[in-house]
Amino acid sequence: MTSSDTAKKTAKDPWELPDVSGLVVGVLGGTGDQGRGLAYRLARAGQRVIIGSRAAERARAAAAELGHGVEGADNAECARRSDVVIVAVPWDGHEQTLRSLRDELTGKLVVDCVNPLGFDKKGAYAVVPEEGSAAEQAAALLPGSRVTAAFHHLSAVLLQDPETERIETDVMVLGEVRADCEIVQALASLIPGMRGVFAGRLRNAHQVESLVANLISVNRRYKAHAGIRLTDI
Amino acid sequence: MTSSDTAKKTAKDPWELPDVSGLVVGVLGGTGDQGRGLAYRLARAGQRVIIGSRAAERARAAAAELGHGVEGADNAECARRSDVVIVAVPWDGHEQTLRSLRDELTGKLVVDCVNPLGFDKKGAYAVVPEEGSAAEQAAALLPGSRVTAAFHHLSAVLLQDPETERIETDVMVLGEVRADCEIVQALASLIPGMRGVFAGRLRNAHQVESLVANLISVNRRYKAHAGIRLTDI
Repeated sequence: MTSSDTAKKTAKDPWELPDVSGLVVGVLGGTGDQGRGLAYRLARAGQRVIIGSRAAERARAAAAELGHGVEGADNAECARRSDVVIVAVPWDGHEQTLRSLRDELTGKLVVDCVNPLGFDKKGAYAVVPEEGSAAEQAAALLPGSRVTAAFHHLSAVLLQDPETERIETDVMVLGEVRADCEIVQALASLIPGMRGVFAGRLRNAHQVESLVANLISVNRRYKAHAGIRLTDI
Repeated sequence: MTSSDTAKKTAKDPWELPDVSGLVVGVLGGTGDQGRGLAYRLARAGQRVIIGSRAAERARAAAAELGHGVEGADNAECARRSDVVIVAVPWDGHEQTLRSLRDELTGKLVVDCVNPLGFDKKGAYAVVPEEGSAAEQAAALLPGSRVTAAFHHLSAVLLQDPETERIETDVMVLGEVRADCEIVQALASLIPGMRGVFAGRLRNAHQVESLVANLISVNRRYKAHAGIRLTDI
């Protein structure tokens, strides 16, 4: 065996992803459009999902509407009972929510999908968090958690539409630890039409988060719910 | 006719693009990989192309290699003789090149495709120009030009490979003036496999430019020349 054969043998297939069927997925901000849509798609794909909200009652009502076994709880209980916690709160509440859940999120795999955007008469524009990105803010606030970033470019309209069977888009997954990213990639890949694709470290999260401002322009011009597909992979 | 019929009648088809066959396209930095690849693809699609370089001799030699009628000139002559000028210089030389060509670029449609990136042991990362993006820097330096941004996410390897017939990717085009963007969209759409898609104002150029850092991570992980396709449009 030559050394190049060895290299090939040890180079892991990037599409070989772990079995995530046993993991409970929590969605903080799960009563908002994005959170509700993600919860619906993952539950419909067979995942056990708990949506969180500040008010448990509201979360339970939204969960009942979503069906597919989705449960509702307050954010703290949602975080505590989940293995993977998707952060889908509005950017305005991002820092405060994560700060208040630091203990519950310790040891958890956190998936930040928040897009820090501002809006004015000319449309949407990128807001730059002091830490560089929402994901880096999460990492700074949650030193005991495994922070990744993903699910930024999905249309909440398509996610929530029960008539839409497939959503043709890729999910760019960012993070520092390969095994953590692969869990998130595997979750994204459960949703028909989607692939979870590794797309870099957290320091490159800002441009992924803020690209949503461009997708908003695309949607407006082309009357669409645009997504992103990576080609040649 | 109802008012909604009128609205429909006046809403322009976003895919209806102008005839650009008569325009001369210049490529500043046309001897670099990206510039050479763009010049090659546009000329191969039938466009008249002039590549520019600091040294005319070098530009002429590169042009002769590219064939398809591509001409070479120094950057100033390239700018003067072109209707549309693609800026494909390295980020390091961006400011100086544009500053020195302000007169030649007056009145021209400038297409900035520069990606301000830094590199270290952990890979590529976004550099934030003082003006917000390379495109906004160009707009600040060239008040008499019509500045747009496009062609950021194309693989120089695929662009330059004569065996590659189609490049399956979309070109995100940014700018302030619809008619200018549509010319650039039309040029991008000449290349088989590509569509030129309007994707927002220049203030949203930074994330488009720096997304290349993420594509570099994708390429590394998946051994690919990744591009971006917008879905649902």
